[in-house]
Amino acid sequence: MENLGYYNGHTDIIENIKIPITDRVCWFGDGIYEASLAGRKIFALDEHLNRLFASAKGIDIEPPHSKKEFEVLLNDLTKKVKGDLKLVYWQVTRDGGLRNHAYDETLKANLLITIRKIDMPDKDIPLSLITLEDKRYKMCNIKTLNLLPNVLAMQIAKNAKCGEAVFVGNGFVRECSHSNIHIIKDGIFKTHPADSRILAGIARAHLIKHCQTLGIPVEFNAFTLGQLYQADEVIVTSSSQICLRANFVDGNAVGGRASKIFENLQMLAYSEFYEGIK
Amino acid sequence: MENLGYYNGHTDIIENIKIPITDRVCWFGDGIYEASLAGRKIFALDEHLNRLFASAKGIDIEPPHSKKEFEVLLNDLTKKVKGDLKLVYWQVTRDGGLRNHAYDETLKANLLITIRKIDMPDKDIPLSLITLEDKRYKMCNIKTLNLLPNVLAMQIAKNAKCGEAVFVGNGFVRECSHSNIHIIKDGIFKTHPADSRILAGIARAHLIKHCQTLGIPVEFNAFTLGQLYQADEVIVTSSSQICLRANFVDGNAVGGRASKIFENLQMLAYSEFYEGIK
Repeated sequence: MENLGYYNGHTDIIENIKIPITDRVCWFGDGIYEASLAGRKIFALDEHLNRLFASAKGIDIEPPHSKKEFEVLLNDLTKKVKGDLKLVYWQVTRDGGLRNHAYDETLKANLLITIRKIDMPDKDIPLSLITLEDKRYKMCNIKTLNLLPNVLAMQIAKNAKCGEAVFVGNGFVRECSHSNIHIIKDGIFKTHPADSRILAGIARAHLIKHCQTLGIPVEFNAFTLGQLYQADEVIVTSSSQICLRANFVDGNAVGGRASKIFENLQMLAYSEFYEGIK
Repeated sequence: MENLGYYNGHTDIIENIKIPITDRVCWFGDGIYEASLAGRKIFALDEHLNRLFASAKGIDIEPPHSKKEFEVLLNDLTKKVKGDLKLVYWQVTRDGGLRNHAYDETLKANLLITIRKIDMPDKDIPLSLITLEDKRYKMCNIKTLNLLPNVLAMQIAKNAKCGEAVFVGNGFVRECSHSNIHIIKDGIFKTHPADSRILAGIARAHLIKHCQTLGIPVEFNAFTLGQLYQADEVIVTSSSQICLRANFVDGNAVGGRASKIFENLQMLAYSEFYEGIK
Protein backbone atom coordinates (compact mmCIF):
# COMPACT_ATOMS: atom_id res chain seq x y z
CA MET A 1 0.00 0.00 0.00
CA GLU A 2 1.02 3.61 -0.56
CA ASN A 3 0.07 4.50 2.99
CA LEU A 4 -1.90 2.83 5.74
CA GLY A 5 -4.33 3.98 8.40
CA TYR A 6 -5.66 1.79 11.20
CA TYR A 7 -8.32 2.48 13.80
CA ASN A 8 -9.39 -0.11 16.34
CA GLY A 9 -8.87 -3.06 14.01
CA HIS A 10 -10.05 -1.44 10.79
CA THR A 11 -7.49 -0.62 8.08
CA ASP A 12 -7.69 1.59 4.98
CA ILE A 13 -5.65 4.37 3.40
CA ILE A 14 -5.06 7.22 5.87
CA GLU A 15 -7.38 9.63 4.04
CA ASN A 16 -10.33 7.24 4.47
CA ILE A 17 -10.01 6.59 8.19
CA LYS A 18 -12.73 8.13 10.33
CA ILE A 19 -13.21 8.12 14.07
CA PRO A 20 -16.42 8.56 16.09
CA ILE A 21 -16.75 11.74 18.11
CA THR A 22 -17.14 9.58 21.21
CA ASP A 23 -13.34 9.20 20.93
CA ARG A 24 -12.37 11.82 23.49
CA VAL A 25 -9.54 13.07 21.32
CA CYS A 26 -12.30 15.05 19.57
CA TRP A 27 -13.29 17.04 22.65
CA PHE A 28 -10.23 17.17 24.84
CA GLY A 29 -7.15 15.95 22.96
CA ASP A 30 -7.43 13.15 25.51
CA GLY A 31 -4.64 10.83 24.44
CA ILE A 32 -0.97 10.14 23.89
CA TYR A 33 1.17 9.14 20.92
CA GLU A 34 4.49 7.92 19.57
CA ALA A 35 6.25 8.10 16.23
CA SER A 36 9.34 6.42 14.85
CA LEU A 37 10.96 5.78 11.51
CA ALA A 38 11.12 2.33 9.99
CA GLY A 39 12.75 0.41 7.19
CA ARG A 40 12.11 -3.31 7.52
CA LYS A 41 12.23 -2.71 11.27
CA ILE A 42 10.92 0.17 13.42
CA PHE A 43 13.77 2.06 15.05
CA ALA A 44 14.00 1.68 18.85
CA LEU A 45 10.48 0.30 19.05
CA ASP A 46 10.97 -1.08 22.56
CA GLU A 47 11.97 2.38 23.82
CA HIS A 48 8.99 4.00 22.10
CA LEU A 49 6.65 1.44 23.63
CA ASN A 50 8.13 1.99 27.07
CA ARG A 51 7.56 5.71 26.67
CA LEU A 52 4.01 5.17 25.37
CA PHE A 53 3.19 3.14 28.46
CA ALA A 54 4.75 5.79 30.71
CA SER A 55 2.70 8.52 28.96
CA ALA A 56 -0.44 6.39 29.30
CA LYS A 57 0.19 6.05 33.02
CA GLY A 58 0.78 9.81 33.25
CA ILE A 59 -2.77 10.52 32.07
CA ASP A 60 -4.42 7.43 33.58
CA ILE A 61 -5.10 5.55 30.34
CA GLU A 62 -4.91 1.78 30.07
CA PRO A 63 -3.34 0.95 26.68
CA PRO A 64 -5.54 -1.40 24.63
CA HIS A 65 -2.72 -3.89 24.03
CA SER A 66 0.35 -5.30 25.76
CA LYS A 67 3.77 -4.13 24.58
CA LYS A 68 4.25 -7.47 22.81
CA GLU A 69 0.91 -7.09 21.01
CA PHE A 70 1.80 -3.54 19.95
CA GLU A 71 5.12 -4.80 18.61
CA VAL A 72 3.53 -7.54 16.52
CA LEU A 73 0.78 -5.26 15.20
CA LEU A 74 3.06 -2.32 14.35
CA ASN A 75 5.66 -4.52 12.64
CA ASP A 76 2.97 -6.36 10.73
CA LEU A 77 1.31 -3.16 9.46
CA THR A 78 4.66 -1.55 8.61
CA LYS A 79 5.43 -4.42 6.22
CA LYS A 80 2.28 -3.63 4.22
CA VAL A 81 3.49 -0.15 3.25
CA LYS A 82 5.85 0.43 0.32
CA GLY A 83 9.05 2.41 0.71
CA ASP A 84 12.56 2.19 2.12
CA LEU A 85 11.84 4.70 4.86
CA LYS A 86 8.47 5.06 6.59
CA LEU A 87 7.06 7.14 9.39
CA VAL A 88 5.13 4.97 11.84
CA TYR A 89 2.78 6.95 14.06
CA TRP A 90 0.43 5.56 16.68
CA GLN A 91 -1.82 7.17 19.23
CA VAL A 92 -3.91 5.87 22.10
CA THR A 93 -6.96 7.89 23.11
CA ARG A 94 -9.52 7.65 25.87
CA ASP A 95 -12.99 6.57 24.85
CA GLY A 96 -16.24 7.93 26.23
CA GLY A 97 -19.84 8.64 25.46
CA LEU A 98 -21.29 12.12 25.34
CA ARG A 99 -18.92 14.96 26.20
CA ASN A 100 -18.05 15.07 29.88
CA HIS A 101 -14.74 16.12 31.43
CA ALA A 102 -14.73 13.24 33.94
CA TYR A 103 -14.33 9.79 32.41
CA ASP A 104 -15.21 6.17 32.96
CA GLU A 105 -12.06 4.25 33.86
CA THR A 106 -13.40 0.93 32.59
CA LEU A 107 -13.76 1.92 28.93
CA LYS A 108 -11.26 0.48 26.46
CA ALA A 109 -8.85 2.98 24.84
CA ASN A 110 -8.76 3.56 21.08
CA LEU A 111 -5.75 2.90 18.88
CA LEU A 112 -5.02 4.90 15.73
CA ILE A 113 -2.02 4.08 13.55
CA THR A 114 -0.72 5.74 10.39
CA ILE A 115 2.21 4.55 8.31
CA ARG A 116 3.54 6.38 5.29
CA LYS A 117 6.62 6.77 3.16
CA ILE A 118 8.86 9.62 4.18
CA ASP A 119 12.08 11.20 2.96
CA MET A 120 14.94 11.63 5.39
CA PRO A 121 15.91 15.30 5.62
CA ASP A 122 19.43 15.94 4.31
CA LYS A 123 21.65 15.63 7.37
CA ASP A 124 24.12 18.12 5.90
CA ILE A 125 21.62 20.98 5.66
CA PRO A 126 21.66 22.88 8.94
CA LEU A 127 18.50 24.30 10.51
CA SER A 128 17.56 27.92 11.10
CA LEU A 129 15.78 28.32 14.43
CA ILE A 130 13.50 30.95 15.89
CA THR A 131 12.94 31.34 19.63
CA LEU A 132 9.69 32.19 21.37
CA GLU A 133 8.19 32.22 24.85
CA ASP A 134 7.29 28.83 26.27
CA LYS A 135 3.61 29.13 27.16
CA ARG A 136 3.09 25.38 27.39
CA TYR A 137 1.75 23.45 30.35
CA LYS A 138 3.96 21.80 32.97
CA MET A 139 3.36 18.28 31.65
CA CYS A 140 5.76 18.33 28.71
CA ASN A 141 7.31 15.06 29.89
CA ILE A 142 4.10 13.30 28.82
CA LYS A 143 3.69 12.90 25.06
CA THR A 144 0.05 13.98 24.84
CA LEU A 145 -2.14 15.21 22.01
CA ASN A 146 -2.52 18.67 23.57
CA LEU A 147 -0.18 20.16 20.98
CA LEU A 148 -1.69 23.50 20.06
CA PRO A 149 1.22 25.60 21.43
CA ASN A 150 3.55 23.37 19.41
CA VAL A 151 1.44 23.86 16.28
CA LEU A 152 1.38 27.64 16.69
CA ALA A 153 5.12 27.70 17.35
CA MET A 154 5.93 25.62 14.27
CA GLN A 155 3.72 27.87 12.14
CA ILE A 156 5.67 30.90 13.37
CA ALA A 157 8.87 29.06 12.43
CA LYS A 158 7.50 28.19 9.00
CA ASN A 159 6.45 31.79 8.36
CA ALA A 160 9.93 32.94 9.37
CA LYS A 161 11.42 30.32 7.00
CA CYS A 162 12.92 28.46 9.95
CA GLY A 163 13.10 24.71 10.43
CA GLU A 164 12.13 24.71 14.09
CA ALA A 165 10.85 26.93 16.89
CA VAL A 166 12.66 26.89 20.23
CA PHE A 167 10.65 27.34 23.43
CA VAL A 168 12.35 29.59 25.98
CA GLY A 169 10.90 29.76 29.50
CA ASN A 170 12.19 32.15 32.18
CA GLY A 171 15.28 32.71 30.04
CA PHE A 172 16.04 28.99 29.76
CA VAL A 173 16.02 27.03 26.54
CA ARG A 174 13.55 24.12 26.93
CA GLU A 175 13.09 22.26 23.65
CA CYS A 176 11.72 22.78 20.14
CA SER A 177 8.16 22.37 18.87
CA HIS A 178 8.78 18.72 18.02
CA SER A 179 12.43 18.04 18.82
CA ASN A 180 15.01 18.43 21.57
CA ILE A 181 17.85 20.93 21.47
CA HIS A 182 21.35 20.68 22.91
CA ILE A 183 24.60 22.62 22.75
CA ILE A 184 28.29 21.85 22.78
CA LYS A 185 30.40 24.36 24.65
CA ASP A 186 34.08 23.94 25.50
CA GLY A 187 33.87 20.26 24.62
CA ILE A 188 30.88 19.59 26.90
CA PHE A 189 27.49 18.37 25.64
CA LYS A 190 24.77 20.30 27.48
CA THR A 191 21.13 19.24 27.48
CA HIS A 192 18.02 20.16 29.45
CA PRO A 193 17.34 17.75 32.31
CA ALA A 194 14.49 15.29 31.67
CA ASP A 195 11.94 17.09 33.85
CA SER A 196 8.36 18.24 33.20
CA ARG A 197 9.58 21.07 30.90
CA ILE A 198 10.68 18.78 28.06
CA LEU A 199 9.87 15.48 26.47
CA ALA A 200 12.79 13.15 26.99
CA GLY A 201 13.39 12.31 23.34
CA ILE A 202 14.60 8.89 22.26
CA ALA A 203 16.99 10.45 19.73
CA ARG A 204 18.23 12.56 22.68
CA ALA A 205 18.84 9.43 24.79
CA HIS A 206 20.76 7.85 21.93
CA LEU A 207 22.88 10.95 21.40
CA ILE A 208 23.76 11.02 25.10
CA LYS A 209 24.88 7.41 24.75
CA HIS A 210 27.02 8.37 21.73
CA CYS A 211 28.60 11.16 23.80
CA GLN A 212 29.57 8.55 26.34
CA THR A 213 31.01 6.32 23.62
CA LEU A 214 33.12 9.25 22.38
CA GLY A 215 34.17 10.34 25.87
CA ILE A 216 32.32 13.67 25.60
CA PRO A 217 31.19 14.90 29.04
CA VAL A 218 27.39 15.39 29.32
CA GLU A 219 25.86 18.07 31.52
CA PHE A 220 22.14 17.88 32.39
CA ASN A 221 21.42 21.54 33.06
CA ALA A 222 19.07 23.97 31.39
CA PHE A 223 21.11 26.50 29.41
CA THR A 224 20.10 30.09 28.75
CA LEU A 225 19.25 31.85 25.53
CA GLY A 226 22.60 33.65 25.85
CA GLN A 227 24.38 30.31 26.07
CA LEU A 228 22.49 29.11 23.00
CA TYR A 229 23.70 32.14 21.02
CA GLN A 230 27.29 31.59 22.21
CA ALA A 231 27.39 27.80 21.79
CA ASP A 232 30.16 26.12 19.84
CA GLU A 233 27.51 23.89 18.25
CA VAL A 234 23.72 23.79 18.42
CA ILE A 235 22.22 20.33 17.87
CA VAL A 236 18.59 19.41 17.25
CA THR A 237 17.42 15.82 17.66
CA SER A 238 14.14 14.03 17.05
CA SER A 239 12.91 10.61 16.00
CA SER A 240 12.24 11.78 12.47
CA GLN A 241 15.28 14.05 11.94
CA ILE A 242 17.76 12.09 14.09
CA CYS A 243 20.56 14.64 14.56
CA LEU A 244 20.90 18.00 12.82
CA ARG A 245 23.05 21.03 13.39
CA ALA A 246 21.55 24.53 13.61
CA ASN A 247 23.44 27.43 12.08
CA PHE A 248 21.07 30.32 12.76
CA VAL A 249 19.06 31.31 15.83
CA ASP A 250 16.79 34.36 15.51
CA GLY A 251 18.74 35.40 12.45
CA ASN A 252 22.13 35.26 14.22
CA ALA A 253 24.80 32.84 13.05
CA VAL A 254 25.52 30.19 15.70
CA GLY A 255 27.78 27.19 16.12
CA GLY A 256 30.22 25.75 13.62
CA ARG A 257 33.04 25.92 16.17
CA ALA A 258 33.15 22.27 17.22
CA SER A 259 32.64 20.62 13.86
CA LYS A 260 34.69 17.54 14.60
CA ILE A 261 32.70 16.69 17.74
CA PHE A 262 29.41 17.33 15.99
CA GLU A 263 30.34 15.25 12.94
CA ASN A 264 31.47 12.32 15.07
CA LEU A 265 28.22 12.40 17.03
CA GLN A 266 26.14 12.69 13.89
CA MET A 267 27.99 9.82 12.26
CA LEU A 268 27.35 7.53 15.22
CA ALA A 269 23.70 8.60 15.36
CA TYR A 270 23.01 7.89 11.68
CA SER A 271 24.98 4.67 11.52
CA GLU A 272 23.14 3.32 14.57
CA PHE A 273 19.86 4.49 13.05
CA TYR A 274 20.38 2.79 9.66
CA GLU A 275 21.55 -0.37 11.41
CA GLY A 276 18.42 -0.25 13.60
CA ILE A 277 15.90 -0.14 10.76
CA LYS A 278 17.45 -2.92 8.68
CA MET B 1 -34.80 14.09 17.64
CA GLU B 2 -33.48 12.83 20.96
CA ASN B 3 -30.10 14.38 20.26
CA LEU B 4 -28.36 15.81 17.23
CA GLY B 5 -24.84 15.75 15.86
CA TYR B 6 -23.65 17.82 12.90
CA TYR B 7 -20.35 17.77 11.05
CA ASN B 8 -19.66 19.96 8.03
CA GLY B 9 -23.26 19.87 6.80
CA HIS B 10 -24.05 16.26 7.65
CA THR B 11 -26.50 15.56 10.54
CA ASP B 12 -27.28 12.39 12.48
CA ILE B 13 -27.56 11.35 16.13
CA ILE B 14 -24.40 12.23 18.06
CA GLU B 15 -23.30 8.61 18.45
CA ASN B 16 -23.21 8.14 14.65
CA ILE B 17 -21.13 11.20 13.76
CA LYS B 18 -17.62 10.43 12.54
CA ILE B 19 -14.83 12.74 11.51
CA PRO B 20 -11.86 12.07 9.22
CA ILE B 21 -8.43 11.98 10.84
CA THR B 22 -7.40 14.79 8.51
CA ASP B 23 -9.36 17.00 10.95
CA ARG B 24 -6.43 18.28 12.97
CA VAL B 25 -8.35 17.93 16.20
CA CYS B 26 -7.28 14.28 15.96
CA TRP B 27 -3.56 14.99 16.09
CA PHE B 28 -3.20 18.28 17.92
CA GLY B 29 -6.51 19.29 19.56
CA ASP B 30 -6.25 22.05 16.96
CA GLY B 31 -9.51 23.90 17.49
CA ILE B 32 -11.80 25.97 19.67
CA TYR B 33 -15.31 25.58 21.00
CA GLU B 34 -18.33 27.12 22.70
CA ALA B 35 -21.26 25.74 24.67
CA SER B 36 -24.47 27.32 25.90
CA LEU B 37 -27.85 26.22 27.20
CA ALA B 38 -31.00 26.67 25.18
CA GLY B 39 -34.74 26.50 25.50
CA ARG B 40 -36.46 27.88 22.42
CA LYS B 41 -33.54 30.31 22.24
CA ILE B 42 -29.82 29.82 22.92
CA PHE B 43 -28.72 31.87 25.93
CA ALA B 44 -26.40 34.79 25.14
CA LEU B 45 -25.64 33.42 21.68
CA ASP B 46 -24.20 36.72 20.44
CA GLU B 47 -21.69 36.77 23.30
CA HIS B 48 -20.73 33.14 22.67
CA LEU B 49 -20.22 33.87 18.98
CA ASN B 50 -18.11 36.91 19.77
CA ARG B 51 -15.95 34.77 22.04
CA LEU B 52 -15.74 32.00 19.41
CA PHE B 53 -14.44 34.49 16.87
CA ALA B 54 -11.95 35.88 19.41
CA SER B 55 -10.72 32.33 20.18
CA ALA B 56 -10.45 31.60 16.46
CA LYS B 57 -8.33 34.68 15.98
CA GLY B 58 -6.18 33.63 18.96
CA ILE B 59 -5.14 30.44 17.19
CA ASP B 60 -5.24 31.78 13.62
CA ILE B 61 -8.33 29.90 12.43
CA GLU B 62 -10.82 31.39 10.00
CA PRO B 63 -14.32 30.29 11.12
CA PRO B 64 -16.24 28.53 8.33
CA HIS B 65 -19.29 30.81 8.70
CA SER B 66 -20.15 34.40 9.53
CA LYS B 67 -21.68 35.13 12.95
CA LYS B 68 -25.08 35.54 11.28
CA GLU B 69 -24.76 32.16 9.53
CA PHE B 70 -23.75 30.50 12.82
CA GLU B 71 -26.76 32.05 14.50
CA VAL B 72 -29.20 30.79 11.86
CA LEU B 73 -27.66 27.30 11.76
CA LEU B 74 -27.45 26.85 15.55
CA ASN B 75 -30.98 28.10 16.14
CA ASP B 76 -32.29 25.95 13.35
CA LEU B 77 -30.63 22.76 14.63
CA THR B 78 -31.62 23.49 18.23
CA LYS B 79 -35.30 23.47 17.22
CA LYS B 80 -34.94 19.90 15.93
CA VAL B 81 -34.06 18.49 19.36
CA LYS B 82 -36.72 17.63 21.95
CA GLY B 83 -36.60 18.97 25.49
CA ASP B 84 -37.17 22.11 27.52
CA LEU B 85 -33.47 22.57 28.25
CA LYS B 86 -30.69 21.63 25.84
CA LEU B 87 -26.92 21.88 25.80
CA VAL B 88 -25.73 23.34 22.50
CA TYR B 89 -22.04 22.68 21.85
CA TRP B 90 -20.08 23.68 18.76
CA GLN B 91 -16.43 23.45 17.85
CA VAL B 92 -14.36 24.76 14.98
CA THR B 93 -11.22 22.82 14.07
CA ARG B 94 -8.41 23.32 11.62
CA ASP B 95 -8.33 21.02 8.65
CA GLY B 96 -5.24 19.50 7.08
CA GLY B 97 -3.89 16.53 5.21
CA LEU B 98 -1.32 14.15 6.62
CA ARG B 99 -0.01 14.98 10.08
CA ASN B 100 2.25 18.01 10.11
CA HIS B 101 2.61 20.62 12.84
CA ALA B 102 2.63 23.55 10.41
CA TYR B 103 -0.61 24.14 8.57
CA ASP B 104 -2.02 25.47 5.34
CA GLU B 105 -3.81 28.76 6.03
CA THR B 106 -6.10 28.45 3.02
CA LEU B 107 -7.92 25.30 4.13
CA LYS B 108 -11.51 25.66 5.33
CA ALA B 109 -12.14 24.93 9.01
CA ASN B 110 -14.46 22.13 10.17
CA LEU B 111 -17.60 22.64 12.21
CA LEU B 112 -18.92 20.07 14.67
CA ILE B 113 -22.14 20.66 16.60
CA THR B 114 -23.89 18.55 19.22
CA ILE B 115 -27.24 19.33 20.82
CA ARG B 116 -28.82 17.28 23.57
CA LYS B 117 -31.30 17.46 26.37
CA ILE B 118 -29.83 18.31 29.73
CA ASP B 119 -31.07 18.71 33.29
CA MET B 120 -30.27 21.91 35.15
CA PRO B 121 -28.33 21.13 38.32
CA ASP B 122 -30.31 22.05 41.45
CA LYS B 123 -29.27 25.61 42.22
CA ASP B 124 -29.83 25.04 45.94
CA ILE B 125 -27.30 22.22 46.24
CA PRO B 126 -23.90 23.76 46.98
CA LEU B 127 -20.69 22.37 45.48
CA SER B 128 -17.76 20.74 47.24
CA LEU B 129 -14.46 21.83 45.67
CA ILE B 130 -10.96 20.42 45.65
CA THR B 131 -7.89 22.53 44.85
CA LEU B 132 -4.86 21.47 42.85
CA GLU B 133 -1.81 22.98 41.20
CA ASP B 134 -2.47 24.84 37.96
CA LYS B 135 -0.17 23.15 35.44
CA ARG B 136 -2.01 24.53 32.45
CA TYR B 137 -0.55 26.59 29.64
CA LYS B 138 -0.59 30.38 29.56
CA MET B 139 -3.34 30.58 26.92
CA CYS B 140 -6.34 29.94 29.15
CA ASN B 141 -8.09 33.02 27.75
CA ILE B 142 -8.56 31.09 24.49
CA LYS B 143 -11.25 28.40 24.62
CA THR B 144 -9.28 25.65 22.88
CA LEU B 145 -9.63 21.88 22.70
CA ASN B 146 -6.34 21.34 24.57
CA LEU B 147 -8.21 20.31 27.70
CA LEU B 148 -6.27 17.40 29.13
CA PRO B 149 -5.27 19.20 32.37
CA ASN B 150 -8.95 20.09 32.82
CA VAL B 151 -9.97 16.47 32.24
CA LEU B 152 -7.43 15.17 34.76
CA ALA B 153 -8.46 17.81 37.30
CA MET B 154 -12.16 17.01 36.96
CA GLN B 155 -11.42 13.31 37.37
CA ILE B 156 -9.57 14.06 40.62
CA ALA B 157 -12.61 16.07 41.74
CA LYS B 158 -14.95 13.23 40.81
CA ASN B 159 -12.86 10.67 42.69
CA ALA B 160 -12.88 12.98 45.73
CA LYS B 161 -16.69 13.28 45.38
CA CYS B 162 -16.35 16.98 44.59
CA GLY B 163 -18.31 18.95 42.01
CA GLU B 164 -15.36 20.93 40.70
CA ALA B 165 -11.57 21.20 40.83
CA VAL B 166 -10.00 24.60 41.46
CA PHE B 167 -6.69 25.45 39.79
CA VAL B 168 -4.27 27.30 42.06
CA GLY B 169 -1.12 28.82 40.54
CA ASN B 170 1.61 30.48 42.60
CA GLY B 171 -0.80 30.58 45.53
CA PHE B 172 -3.51 32.37 43.53
CA VAL B 173 -6.90 30.92 42.74
CA ARG B 174 -7.35 30.91 38.94
CA GLU B 175 -10.55 29.14 37.91
CA CYS B 176 -12.11 25.68 37.96
CA SER B 177 -11.78 22.86 35.43
CA HIS B 178 -14.78 24.13 33.48
CA SER B 179 -16.11 27.13 35.41
CA ASN B 180 -15.02 30.41 36.97
CA ILE B 181 -14.78 30.99 40.71
CA HIS B 182 -15.35 34.16 42.72
CA ILE B 183 -15.64 35.17 46.36
CA ILE B 184 -17.57 37.68 48.37
CA LYS B 185 -15.65 39.20 51.26
CA ASP B 186 -16.81 42.15 53.37
CA GLY B 187 -19.50 42.92 50.83
CA ILE B 188 -17.09 43.00 47.85
CA PHE B 189 -17.32 40.61 44.88
CA LYS B 190 -13.79 39.50 43.99
CA THR B 191 -12.93 37.79 40.71
CA HIS B 192 -9.75 36.95 38.84
CA PRO B 193 -8.90 39.52 36.16
CA ALA B 194 -9.63 38.41 32.60
CA ASP B 195 -6.01 37.67 31.67
CA SER B 196 -4.33 34.62 30.10
CA ARG B 197 -4.76 32.57 33.33
CA ILE B 198 -8.53 32.20 33.03
CA LEU B 199 -11.26 31.98 30.44
CA ALA B 200 -13.47 35.03 30.77
CA GLY B 201 -16.76 33.18 31.27
CA ILE B 202 -20.01 34.56 29.93
CA ALA B 203 -21.82 33.58 33.13
CA ARG B 204 -19.03 35.49 34.94
CA ALA B 205 -19.65 38.59 32.80
CA HIS B 206 -23.37 38.40 33.56
CA LEU B 207 -22.77 38.01 37.29
CA ILE B 208 -20.51 41.07 37.28
CA LYS B 209 -23.36 42.96 35.62
CA HIS B 210 -25.75 41.74 38.32
CA CYS B 211 -23.31 42.96 41.00
CA GLN B 212 -23.47 46.38 39.38
CA THR B 213 -27.29 46.25 39.35
CA LEU B 214 -27.28 45.45 43.06
CA GLY B 215 -24.62 48.03 43.90
CA ILE B 216 -22.09 45.38 45.00
CA PRO B 217 -18.51 46.60 44.43
CA VAL B 218 -16.48 44.36 42.09
CA GLU B 219 -12.73 43.86 42.48
CA PHE B 220 -10.74 42.37 39.60
CA ASN B 221 -7.80 40.91 41.52
CA ALA B 222 -6.58 37.35 41.85
CA PHE B 223 -7.29 36.14 45.40
CA THR B 224 -5.22 33.62 47.32
CA LEU B 225 -6.08 30.13 48.51
CA GLY B 226 -6.15 31.59 52.04
CA GLN B 227 -8.70 34.18 50.93
CA LEU B 228 -10.78 31.42 49.34
CA TYR B 229 -10.85 29.52 52.64
CA GLN B 230 -11.81 32.69 54.54
CA ALA B 231 -14.38 34.02 52.05
CA ASP B 232 -17.87 34.99 53.18
CA GLU B 233 -19.21 33.26 50.07
CA VAL B 234 -17.61 31.17 47.33
CA ILE B 235 -19.43 31.32 43.99
CA VAL B 236 -18.91 29.12 40.93
CA THR B 237 -20.27 30.19 37.55
CA SER B 238 -20.43 28.55 34.13
CA SER B 239 -22.65 28.50 31.08
CA SER B 240 -24.16 25.17 32.09
CA GLN B 241 -24.41 25.68 35.86
CA ILE B 242 -25.09 29.45 35.84
CA CYS B 243 -24.41 30.38 39.49
CA LEU B 244 -23.79 27.98 42.37
CA ARG B 245 -22.47 28.41 45.88
CA ALA B 246 -19.64 26.24 47.21
CA ASN B 247 -19.76 25.09 50.82
CA PHE B 248 -16.61 22.98 51.07
CA VAL B 249 -13.06 23.51 49.77
CA ASP B 250 -10.56 20.72 50.36
CA GLY B 251 -12.89 19.31 53.00
CA ASN B 252 -13.10 22.59 54.95
CA ALA B 253 -16.44 24.36 55.34
CA VAL B 254 -16.45 27.70 53.53
CA GLY B 255 -18.86 30.56 52.93
CA GLY B 256 -22.44 30.88 54.08
CA ARG B 257 -21.72 34.22 55.71
CA ALA B 258 -23.18 36.52 53.06
CA SER B 259 -26.30 34.56 52.17
CA LYS B 260 -28.43 37.54 51.33
CA ILE B 261 -25.95 38.90 48.79
CA PHE B 262 -25.44 35.47 47.25
CA GLU B 263 -29.16 34.78 47.01
CA ASN B 264 -29.87 38.13 45.38
CA LEU B 265 -27.14 37.54 42.81
CA GLN B 266 -28.29 33.99 42.13
CA MET B 267 -31.89 35.14 41.73
CA LEU B 268 -30.91 37.76 39.15
CA ALA B 269 -28.69 35.27 37.31
CA TYR B 270 -31.38 32.59 37.01
CA SER B 271 -34.20 34.97 36.17
CA GLU B 272 -32.13 36.55 33.41
CA PHE B 273 -31.16 33.08 32.21
CA TYR B 274 -34.71 31.73 32.00
CA GLU B 275 -35.83 34.92 30.32
CA GLY B 276 -32.97 34.57 27.81
CA ILE B 277 -33.85 31.04 26.65
CA LYS B 278 -37.60 31.67 26.18
